[in-house]
Amino acid sequence: MTGSQEERNLATRKAGALATPAADVWVASVSPTGAPHLVPVSVARLDERAVIAVEGRSVTARNLSATGAARVALGPTRDVVMIDAVVENAVNVDADARLGAAYAAQADWDPRLSSGYVFFVLRPVRVQAWREAEEIPGRTLMRDGTWLV
Amino acid sequence: MTGSQEERNLATRKAGALATPAADVWVASVSPTGAPHLVPVSVARLDERAVIAVEGRSVTARNLSATGAARVALGPTRDVVMIDAVVENAVNVDADARLGAAYAAQADWDPRLSSGYVFFVLRPVRVQAWREAEEIPGRTLMRDGTWLV
Repeated sequence: MTGSQEERNLATRKAGALATPAADVWVASVSPTGAPHLVPVSVARLDERAVIAVEGRSVTARNLSATGAARVALGPTRDVVMIDAVVENAVNVDADARLGAAYAAQADWDPRLSSGYVFFVLRPVRVQAWREAEEIPGRTLMRDGTWLV
Repeated sequence: MTGSQEERNLATRKAGALATPAADVWVASVSPTGAPHLVPVSVARLDERAVIAVEGRSVTARNLSATGAARVALGPTRDVVMIDAVVENAVNVDADARLGAAYAAQADWDPRLSSGYVFFVLRPVRVQAWREAEEIPGRTLMRDGTWLV
C-alpha cells in the first residue's frame, strides 16, 4: 500500500506505539500441525507485556500453549504496530489478582466473570510500526527484545 | 468481547460478508518452520476469491508458496469476516491481465507499476462472521468450500 504521508522517524514511531491505547488486537498463532489462526481480542498492557484473555479450549489458547509464539497487530491496517511475541505466562484468569485487575481495568469486559478463560502474557521480541509503503523501510523498533530507539 | 447488539441470522451475515467493500485485510500465514506471520494488505475480489499482491521476496509470499494456506480477516475487530483460504494460484502481477485489471480497479494502487510483486489468488474454504461475543455461536457461513446459507 502506498500513501502520501511523510514518514515518521523511529523515535516518533516508538512514542506512537507506546501511546496506542489498549484496545483490540489481532492475534495470529499457529497450530501444532502448522495451520494459521487469527482472531480479534481485547488486550491490556502490563509491564510492557500484552495480556489477552481467551477461552482455554479455544484454538488460540491451544496454539499458544503448544507453540509459545504469536504475532500481534495493533491499530488499523494503515497505522499498524506489529509485535512478534513469546508466551511468558499462561494462567487461569482467577489465579493472578494483579493480572486480573489490570485486564479488567483496561478492557471493556472482565473474563473473571465467565468460566474457562485463560490469560496469556505475551512478551514482545520484535516490534515494528508503519503506516503505508513509505514507512516500510526502517520499520523495526525492537529487535531480540531490545528497543532500537 | 461482549456487546449489546442483537445477533444477526446467518443469511444477514452472509449478505454482510459479501457486501463488505474491497479494502484492506489482515493475512495470517505460517512459515515452513512454523512461525506465525501477519500483515495488512489491500485486497480485491474476483469470482469469490480474495486476491492480494505482495512482494515475491516477502515473508508472506514465501509462506503462502510453501504452505498454500492463509487465514484472512476483513473488517474492524468487532465486525469481522474471517476466511480460511487455500492458495489457488500465484502469478507475477504482469502475467495475468484479467487479474491485474481487477486488482487495479478495486485497490488503491497498481502493483504492476512496481517490480517484483506477485498475485496470490486465495480460495475460501471456511468463512465465519461475527460482531461481538453474542454472535460467536453459529458464526460459520461456509464450511469445506460450501456456503451453509
